[in-house]
Amino acid sequence: MERIIEVDEWKVVEQELHPEKNRLAESLMSIGNGHMGMRGNFEETYSGDTHEGTYIGGVYYPDKTRVGWWKNGYPEYFAKVLNAPNFTGIRIFVEGSELDLNTWNVTNFRRELNMKHGYLYRTFTAENEEGHKIEANITRFFSIVSHSLVAIRYEIKPVNFDGTLTFQPYINGDVRNEDANYDEDFWEPVHHEVVDNVGVLSMRTRKTAFDVTAAMRTSVYGQEIQVTNTTDEEEYIDNTIEVAATEGEPVTFYKYVAVTTNRDYEQEELAEKAIALVGDAFEAGFDELFDAQQDAWEERWKKADVTVGGDAEAQQGIRYNIFQLYNTYDGDDPRLNIGPKGFTGEKYGGSTYWDTEAYCLPFYLSTADPTIARNLLIYRYNHLDEAKENAQKLGLNGALYPMVTMNGQESHNEWEITFEEIHRNGAIAHAIWNYVNYTGDATYLPQYGFEVLAEISRFWSSRVHFNARKGKYVMLGVTGPNEYENNVNNNWYTNRMAAWTLEYTLGVARFLQRRYPGRYEELVHALGIRTEELDHWKHIINNMYYPYDEETGVFLQQDGFMDKELMAMSELDSKHLPINQNWSWDKILRSCFIKQADVLQGLYFLNHKYSLEEKKRNFYFYEPMTVHESSLSPCVHSILAAEIGETEKAYEMYVRTARLDLDNYNNDTEDGLHITSMAGSWLSIVHGFAGMRVMNGSLNFTPMIPEDWDSYSFKINFRGRLLKVTVTHERTSIELEEGNDLTVILNGDMLKVPRALIAVPSM
Amino acid sequence: MERIIEVDEWKVVEQELHPEKNRLAESLMSIGNGHMGMRGNFEETYSGDTHEGTYIGGVYYPDKTRVGWWKNGYPEYFAKVLNAPNFTGIRIFVEGSELDLNTWNVTNFRRELNMKHGYLYRTFTAENEEGHKIEANITRFFSIVSHSLVAIRYEIKPVNFDGTLTFQPYINGDVRNEDANYDEDFWEPVHHEVVDNVGVLSMRTRKTAFDVTAAMRTSVYGQEIQVTNTTDEEEYIDNTIEVAATEGEPVTFYKYVAVTTNRDYEQEELAEKAIALVGDAFEAGFDELFDAQQDAWEERWKKADVTVGGDAEAQQGIRYNIFQLYNTYDGDDPRLNIGPKGFTGEKYGGSTYWDTEAYCLPFYLSTADPTIARNLLIYRYNHLDEAKENAQKLGLNGALYPMVTMNGQESHNEWEITFEEIHRNGAIAHAIWNYVNYTGDATYLPQYGFEVLAEISRFWSSRVHFNARKGKYVMLGVTGPNEYENNVNNNWYTNRMAAWTLEYTLGVARFLQRRYPGRYEELVHALGIRTEELDHWKHIINNMYYPYDEETGVFLQQDGFMDKELMAMSELDSKHLPINQNWSWDKILRSCFIKQADVLQGLYFLNHKYSLEEKKRNFYFYEPMTVHESSLSPCVHSILAAEIGETEKAYEMYVRTARLDLDNYNNDTEDGLHITSMAGSWLSIVHGFAGMRVMNGSLNFTPMIPEDWDSYSFKINFRGRLLKVTVTHERTSIELEEGNDLTVILNGDMLKVPRALIAVPSM
Repeated sequence: MERIIEVDEWKVVEQELHPEKNRLAESLMSIGNGHMGMRGNFEETYSGDTHEGTYIGGVYYPDKTRVGWWKNGYPEYFAKVLNAPNFTGIRIFVEGSELDLNTWNVTNFRRELNMKHGYLYRTFTAENEEGHKIEANITRFFSIVSHSLVAIRYEIKPVNFDGTLTFQPYINGDVRNEDANYDEDFWEPVHHEVVDNVGVLSMRTRKTAFDVTAAMRTSVYGQEIQVTNTTDEEEYIDNTIEVAATEGEPVTFYKYVAVTTNRDYEQEELAEKAIALVGDAFEAGFDELFDAQQDAWEERWKKADVTVGGDAEAQQGIRYNIFQLYNTYDGDDPRLNIGPKGFTGEKYGGSTYWDTEAYCLPFYLSTADPTIARNLLIYRYNHLDEAKENAQKLGLNGALYPMVTMNGQESHNEWEITFEEIHRNGAIAHAIWNYVNYTGDATYLPQYGFEVLAEISRFWSSRVHFNARKGKYVMLGVTGPNEYENNVNNNWYTNRMAAWTLEYTLGVARFLQRRYPGRYEELVHALGIRTEELDHWKHIINNMYYPYDEETGVFLQQDGFMDKELMAMSELDSKHLPINQNWSWDKILRSCFIKQADVLQGLYFLNHKYSLEEKKRNFYFYEPMTVHESSLSPCVHSILAAEIGETEKAYEMYVRTARLDLDNYNNDTEDGLHITSMAGSWLSIVHGFAGMRVMNGSLNFTPMIPEDWDSYSFKINFRGRLLKVTVTHERTSIELEEGNDLTVILNGDMLKVPRALIAVPSM
Repeated sequence: MERIIEVDEWKVVEQELHPEKNRLAESLMSIGNGHMGMRGNFEETYSGDTHEGTYIGGVYYPDKTRVGWWKNGYPEYFAKVLNAPNFTGIRIFVEGSELDLNTWNVTNFRRELNMKHGYLYRTFTAENEEGHKIEANITRFFSIVSHSLVAIRYEIKPVNFDGTLTFQPYINGDVRNEDANYDEDFWEPVHHEVVDNVGVLSMRTRKTAFDVTAAMRTSVYGQEIQVTNTTDEEEYIDNTIEVAATEGEPVTFYKYVAVTTNRDYEQEELAEKAIALVGDAFEAGFDELFDAQQDAWEERWKKADVTVGGDAEAQQGIRYNIFQLYNTYDGDDPRLNIGPKGFTGEKYGGSTYWDTEAYCLPFYLSTADPTIARNLLIYRYNHLDEAKENAQKLGLNGALYPMVTMNGQESHNEWEITFEEIHRNGAIAHAIWNYVNYTGDATYLPQYGFEVLAEISRFWSSRVHFNARKGKYVMLGVTGPNEYENNVNNNWYTNRMAAWTLEYTLGVARFLQRRYPGRYEELVHALGIRTEELDHWKHIINNMYYPYDEETGVFLQQDGFMDKELMAMSELDSKHLPINQNWSWDKILRSCFIKQADVLQGLYFLNHKYSLEEKKRNFYFYEPMTVHESSLSPCVHSILAAEIGETEKAYEMYVRTARLDLDNYNNDTEDGLHITSMAGSWLSIVHGFAGMRVMNGSLNFTPMIPEDWDSYSFKINFRGRLLKVTVTHERTSIELEEGNDLTVILNGDMLKVPRALIAVPSM
């Protein structure tokens, strides 16, 4: 654990420069608008350690696959998150001497991420060797109102001199990824033009041919200015603007940038559009844009906020997570998804993991308009052809969605993951159920859902085989959610989700046949589904093998689990932890230790199908062996712990996710934030502490509250209503903030929530 | 299958140039002397497709490890077989026009590897555009008498002109590996000097700092010559020698090369030694050296030859295998080992695999002086420290020998192999038993053997754990010899070899205690062995878990094997074969198909511990599922098939190994020869067809003969005797060619072999 920021309910504040921790600070201060984003880099030149990173949603590069030994079916290239041209840069010169916080004497430094209003603010005083001292105040935001827009206000006050301040705004296309496999350049220049205070640079990615155009427009208020010089290179454009400044009088410089890509516009019109958009921004002016940004974030928080009373750290943690999730994905473009590092770093390839369906989807379902979650589902629908190709590559039927992807094609190349961690298919099917169950929007099924479900079911059906000795269907050679096991037989979770998918698909088929008979006929015909196939699925459902231990009554994570040397993590000397940094892979694999929820993940997903007793037995068996070395693990344990009444454990597990990045728990936040696991802390509160479930179209709550907290509240968007649920040690209150009356089930009792508040005593 | 050479009992002959198959031909025509060697490249320039490759034993390069995802314990670098300076090159000019078989009109081409006498011979007629026609005859050999020496005779006859022939002998240090991971140069120049007809070039490997010096000396007989030019570059030296040639009169050019390395000499004296050695060769002259080479090979064949009557293909195959094994390793340097491609290619890193102990050692034991096999054992003894470090890296005790190595350190980086294919340790222990059992040389045990056995036993003992439910020791997460299974639990072969190692080590301990009590005390003290440790080993031996199927009575390859979809390879459509080129890895892993002998490998190694019935049951169970996609597989099946009376199967399996390269069965011989598996064809004949075993110090034979053969014979070096065993359909005869009378057991009967022949009727 390492905390360089201060605790504040609505802000993330760094109160001094941390030259040796600057990458960590840059990750933490990342900001984006769901379509693009960047790390908390300085606008001005910084010669100290920094990782400059700007990222644009959906723009990726197919880097060469690197493996020790090639296996049939590996992707030849994989989609790399791509560092894009730096368009926020502004070089600053004070009487000809370049401002650089690494070499100047810096005091009163403050870097502050404002979560409430969605902007990054910096202030500092800096003095150079010649004794020139300035004060600076900088504000930057990525507009969530106009997705192509970034605005910067850079204010400098000469403290002890009259003289020339030079602003040199630029766009730099000569950027590289830190982790390129073969030191290749990923970008090539396409177009550049620059005149006074306006410039355009277009770059194109090699191979994928994404065109990205950035147009900048700058201005200075309150001073006479002179544009003295113009640089116009192939991959770099800038202006040089000299201002005669007076001691004690601030100079305010503005830079507006609009970014367009050929994902949204025709290639020929990119520059024109970018110039038009940046012109509009210029006309509106910084203050108007900034106001709109603040209003938009307030509106968002109205639907998504979670409060924690009496625990400022927890409060900051949950708000940070919600903030960064929305910075990464706001759901209005079904071609985008939720990258594991969002727009905060470039480690890991691809933007889409099963994290989206398993962790993020429920968050968006409850905190935003249902179209957002629907777009996440449509993303997979749009990749159905690639998923079918993927299954075919493995010699199987139906569709296997990729483990990691940017464009529907597999981007990962460890055989134990790419080829065997196939449970991801189950989560994608489950997300459809989740969406329909939550929203009641059954129209998704005939339109999109059934095709995906049917093809996933076909995959499962071709992946199992009937073992005559057992008289059961088995599934050999898989990797479950717990990646500290590879190539195991009959992973309980995978088998269970496979059978569940078949069951759900058959249920949906019956539903469609009844409600949408014409469409059903059409689908059955198009997909070539015959009665024999459906009968075979039934046979699999009824005869699936689930490893089970008679003696303890637990569902076995996989065949042979009881042969392991079973021990609790607490028996390990702390020098062994984390085991993934201290043990060789074979030792991890044969140990009993579990990276992340596996059987328990199944009990969470199929919650209503298991009794409290079953949940308790399995939780008490697996939790002590779980090392939670995946950021996705603790939330599931937290939710189940809350359900079985293990309040302290539930809270402990919550704390592990909520401030993972803010306190740099895993010591790797410098590479970027753990975006997808951020949804886990929201899940822990809402599904865990408040016990929210949707059953038969009704919201259910069974709230509890951690001892250390005074209260907590959260917002729920449910079928046209906006609810605010507040839990204290005394009572749970549910307020209807928007929409019609609603009946909810609270601790088993049906209660009608009218437009006014209802409140019941806590259990 | 693809055959570009003609069948001949003592030669490998290519009768025409195969420009599109030249790499295959180059592999096949490789020649070496156990210390260095090269592919069958032309001396003169060849502008067509070629893979120039010269390799020097023990000189390697640590190339950067390349993996998809890093795992703790991977080697950072791995030892790459290194393409060394080309020292055989001679550019030839005819009236100023350079000879190039790719562009000249070539007739009467013949390239011929003479196995009987150990040399490569070429002849051709070539005519250029100007109509100048020459006849050439070239002979090259790597001396097995003087290991640093290579000699070339290059004879040219102008067919239709008088004119100038120019010879430009050179040494070129500017060479690269075809498969370098990062396009690095592996060599840097150290020293170079060249005067008329003598030149020296010294190159040094980066990082490993191996110095290799080659000195050349050239001469021309029968003509006036003029040395007109001398090139002296950092990485390249040459001479230009012009000869006034007369139509119809051959000009004979000689090039002698001596190669010295800092593995054998001080760095400062490398050039001096090389010049002295090449001077000696020059003084002796080509004919004397060539005679010595031929005599030495004849002497070698006297001890090692195998004849096959009535089957010229089989005859060529077995001789080719023996020939190439000796080209790769002749056993007089315990720092060298038997690389999988020998000196014939650079694919795969490292020179040493378990192939050495499991396949090659028995061949050298029987065909050569016992010091050769002993040196192979000492090689591992010398790497004991590295093997202990390797175990430590995995958090285990004792010694784990590397899967692949050049210097004792692990060179492989797939976790399922590097960390889990630990059965290699068993083969290394078994080789000690094999050596002592065969030679009767028990002195090896107190000197070297016990230390290795004890440390391997310690490894096994820390790698198993006691499972209370089973009441047995289990070994989880291993990869057996069948690499079409990864990370399995309780691989029968591995468990069996582990327990066997412990048992043998305890036996050796008792033997040492009795025979060498002083040395034993010393060893026990040095190794820190306590009684408790030995007792623990006993407990493991008595309580090891072996997966077994009650219903079929077979030893199960691993836990869960019976859950697989069992089917015979013959049920697969041929389009699926080989499965490693047609199936994705997960499909291979969960299939029942077996890459190479696994349970059967154990029955071969521990042959005397299993009944014929057990062998039959397991053979009939596993053989139909074995796809033999490792070149090491068929020989073990052949041997067991012979033992259980499946004569046809034994022969079928023999054929699969014997001409693997000559007929390019795997379509990859262009990358180099499959050296280690070559021992398998010898094993098939001697251990298989002739049923040779050594039990209680006696040679046992239970011969059979394949139907298609008239006869076969082989030589056996056994405890001071040289025996010739000849098997026909009528009888088996055993001749004592050297040494004292010997009692052997033939088909169960004890027979004394006097100096004269004995012969008994065939069964």
